[in-house]
Amino acid sequence: MELKRSPLAPTSFPTLPEIRGARLAAGESGVRYSGRPDLLVVELRPGTTIAGTLTRSQAPSAPVDWCRACLPRGRARALVVNSGNANAFTGTRGVQSVQRTVAAAARLFNCADDEVYLASTGVIGEPLPDEKITALLPTLATSLRGDAWPEAARAIMTTDTFPKIATRTVTIEGTRVTINGIAKGSGMIAPDMATMLAFVFTDAAIPAEALRSMVAASVDRSFNCTTVDGDTSTSDTVLVCATGAAGHGGTGALPGFRRALTDLMADLAKQVVADGEGAEKFVTIEVSGAASKRAARRIGLAIANSPLVKTAIAGEDANWGRIVMAVGKSGEKADRDRLAISIGGVTVAENGQRVEGFDETPVASHIKGRDVKIAVDVGVGRGKATVWTCDLTHRYIDINAGYRS
Amino acid sequence: MELKRSPLAPTSFPTLPEIRGARLAAGESGVRYSGRPDLLVVELRPGTTIAGTLTRSQAPSAPVDWCRACLPRGRARALVVNSGNANAFTGTRGVQSVQRTVAAAARLFNCADDEVYLASTGVIGEPLPDEKITALLPTLATSLRGDAWPEAARAIMTTDTFPKIATRTVTIEGTRVTINGIAKGSGMIAPDMATMLAFVFTDAAIPAEALRSMVAASVDRSFNCTTVDGDTSTSDTVLVCATGAAGHGGTGALPGFRRALTDLMADLAKQVVADGEGAEKFVTIEVSGAASKRAARRIGLAIANSPLVKTAIAGEDANWGRIVMAVGKSGEKADRDRLAISIGGVTVAENGQRVEGFDETPVASHIKGRDVKIAVDVGVGRGKATVWTCDLTHRYIDINAGYRS
Repeated sequence: MELKRSPLAPTSFPTLPEIRGARLAAGESGVRYSGRPDLLVVELRPGTTIAGTLTRSQAPSAPVDWCRACLPRGRARALVVNSGNANAFTGTRGVQSVQRTVAAAARLFNCADDEVYLASTGVIGEPLPDEKITALLPTLATSLRGDAWPEAARAIMTTDTFPKIATRTVTIEGTRVTINGIAKGSGMIAPDMATMLAFVFTDAAIPAEALRSMVAASVDRSFNCTTVDGDTSTSDTVLVCATGAAGHGGTGALPGFRRALTDLMADLAKQVVADGEGAEKFVTIEVSGAASKRAARRIGLAIANSPLVKTAIAGEDANWGRIVMAVGKSGEKADRDRLAISIGGVTVAENGQRVEGFDETPVASHIKGRDVKIAVDVGVGRGKATVWTCDLTHRYIDINAGYRS
Repeated sequence: MELKRSPLAPTSFPTLPEIRGARLAAGESGVRYSGRPDLLVVELRPGTTIAGTLTRSQAPSAPVDWCRACLPRGRARALVVNSGNANAFTGTRGVQSVQRTVAAAARLFNCADDEVYLASTGVIGEPLPDEKITALLPTLATSLRGDAWPEAARAIMTTDTFPKIATRTVTIEGTRVTINGIAKGSGMIAPDMATMLAFVFTDAAIPAEALRSMVAASVDRSFNCTTVDGDTSTSDTVLVCATGAAGHGGTGALPGFRRALTDLMADLAKQVVADGEGAEKFVTIEVSGAASKRAARRIGLAIANSPLVKTAIAGEDANWGRIVMAVGKSGEKADRDRLAISIGGVTVAENGQRVEGFDETPVASHIKGRDVKIAVDVGVGRGKATVWTCDLTHRYIDINAGYRS
C-alpha cells in the first residue's frame, strides 16, 4: 500500500551536523522491502558510552534481549538496525540470528560482541533472514560517512511516512557539543517506560552511569508521554551513544546537556505522533491537579488512548463528555465535582459541570484545526503531565487491516 | 445517522414470559430522540429484593450515585430508565433531576424514595430535562403490562441496532421460576467490575444478601469479560430484581439459579458485543496458562482491546504477531518461550515461535467467517478466562465521529 505523507509532517527538516566519533551507512539488504534502504550501520569510536531504555513487553524481541544484556557494560562500538522484520517471537532461531549478526559486526569493527547493539522493526513472528544482513555489512562498512543522517533515518522506517530527525547543540564548560537523533514509529505506539526505535548520538563525553540517569529522565518526559494506539511494541528501543570526541572535561551534573537531551527526545517523540498511522490532527493533553505526576500521565494517556475521544476529534466534534468518561476510567483519583476542562484555551466545564451559558463556537472552530489542545484539571492534587497523541481516522484502519506488522 | 442492523444480530428473538410481580411500560418522553420510545418504567411488587453492580468510573453519573446509595437497603419498588441523556457530569443540577424523578415515581408507586432505582444513558454533560420524564410518568403508570419486554428493551437503546433480551427458567425446590433480562450497549463498552445497562427480573424469592453475591459472581463471568472499545462508561449499571412472587420456600445455596443467572447474563453480554459499534465479526478469546484467573482475563482484554489486533481481524488477516504484542503489553506474567496461539482451532505458534511448516490456509479461511476463535496459552500457570469482543471497522469511526454520546 502506498502511504500518503502525514498532513502533520514537518514542512522542513533540519540539516544534521556531523557527530565526531560516529559514522553511518545505509543500504538495501532486501530482508522484506525492495527498492528502499532497510539496513543501517553506525560505527562508534572506541570509548563511546551508551545508555538506553527497552520495551517492558513480556514478549520482547531477540534484539531487545541482546541489548538488555549488554547495556550494563555501557560501551558501544557499533549499531546495526534493520527494518521489515522485527526478529520477535522467533525462538532460538531469532537468538541465532542475533548471534550471527553480532559476530559479523564485531569482526568488521574489531570490537567485543557486547559492544555491538542491534534493533529490528517490522513483522513479528517471521524468522529473520539474517544472511541478507551479514552479506551487506562489509559493503556498508566501507561506505561509512559522517553526514548520512537522512539515509539513516529513512532506513529504519516501516509505515512511517516521513523520516524523523532532530539536532541540538549545547555548551559544556566552554566546549560546544552536538546531539543528533533519529527515530521511527507510526503504529504500535504506546511506550511504557520504553519506546519505539530512537537512536541518539552526541560527541559529548559522558560516563555511562551519568548517561543512564539522564536517558531515563528524558525518556520519561518525552517518548513515555506519547501514544498513537495504546499498543506497546515487542521491540521498543531507545539508545543514546556519547562518543566523547568533543573532548571537554565536563563531569558535573550537566543540566544544560540534560535539558537539551530531553528537548531533542520530545522533538522526536512528537514527530512520531505527527506520523501516527492515519493521523489528521496533533493533540496535546495537559493534565493538572492530579495526585501525582505519574497519576497525571496515566489520566492523560487514558484520554489519549480512548477510541471515543480520538474518533470525536477526527470528526471535529468537541465532545468533552468523552473526556469526562476517559478521566473516570483511568483508575486514578479525580474529583468529579471539581473537574475542569478546556479545549483550545476555552473553558467548557468546571466544578463538575458545563459552564453556564457555554458558547461552543470558538471551541468548534479550534477543533477544526490541525493542532488540538485539551487541558484537564482533576482537582485533587498538584501532579501535572503533558501527553501527545493523534486522532483515530479511517486511514488507521486502512493501514492496519492491510499491513502485516 | 441511520444505523444499519449489526450483521451479528441474532436471527430470532425469544418471547419473554411474564414475571409475576413485575409490570412494565415504555413511552416517548422526547428527552433527546423523537419518534421512538426513550423512557422505561418498571413497577415491582412490595417485598422485591434488588442487587446490582455499578461503574467503577471516578466520574459516575448522578443516577449511578443514587443507585449506589440505595443498594445496601436491597429493596426495590420501581425502576425508571431513560435513553438519550446520561445525566452524567451535570453537577448539582443532575442531582436535582434525580431527586425530582425519584420523588415523582415514589408518589406514583406509593413507596419510599430509596425503593426507586434510576438509570440514564446517552450524551454526557448536558443537563437532563427531567420535566419531560416526570410529565410522562403518570401516563406510563396507567399502562403497565406484564408482557411489554420488547418495548422495554427498545426504550433503553442508544446506538444499539437491535434490542437485547434473554430469558431462562429454573426450578427451585419444585417451583418453576423465570429470569428475564434486557440490556443495552454498543459503544463505550469495557465494563470493569461493572457494565453497561442491564436489568434482570425474576419471580424467585431471594434474600437481598444472597442475591448480591450471586450478581457479583455472575457479572464477573459475563459483562466483565466483554469489551468493544476499552472505554468504560460513566453510567454502567446492572440491576437484578427478585419479586419473590413465585412463592417457593428456597433459601439454600440455589446453585441452579446461580448457573441460570450467569448463563442469562453471558447471553446478554454477548448480544452487547454482537452489537458492538461497527462490528462485523464476533471474537472469542480463550486464555489459559496464566498466573491466575484475573491475570488470564487481563491478558484476554489486552488482546481484545488492541486496535492492531481488532483491525487485523477486520481485514481478515490472521496476524498472530499482534496477539504476541498484546500478550506482551498486558502487564501480566507470560513466558514468551512457552507461548502457544491457535486460531480457529489451528495451532499457529507454540514454544515461542511459529510452528514448523505452518500452513496458513485453514486459518485464513476461518478468519473470513463471522465467528473468530482465538486461544492463547501463556505458559506460566493454571489461570483461565474467556473474553468476548468484536473487530474494529470503518463503521466504528463513522458512528463515533458523528454521534455525540
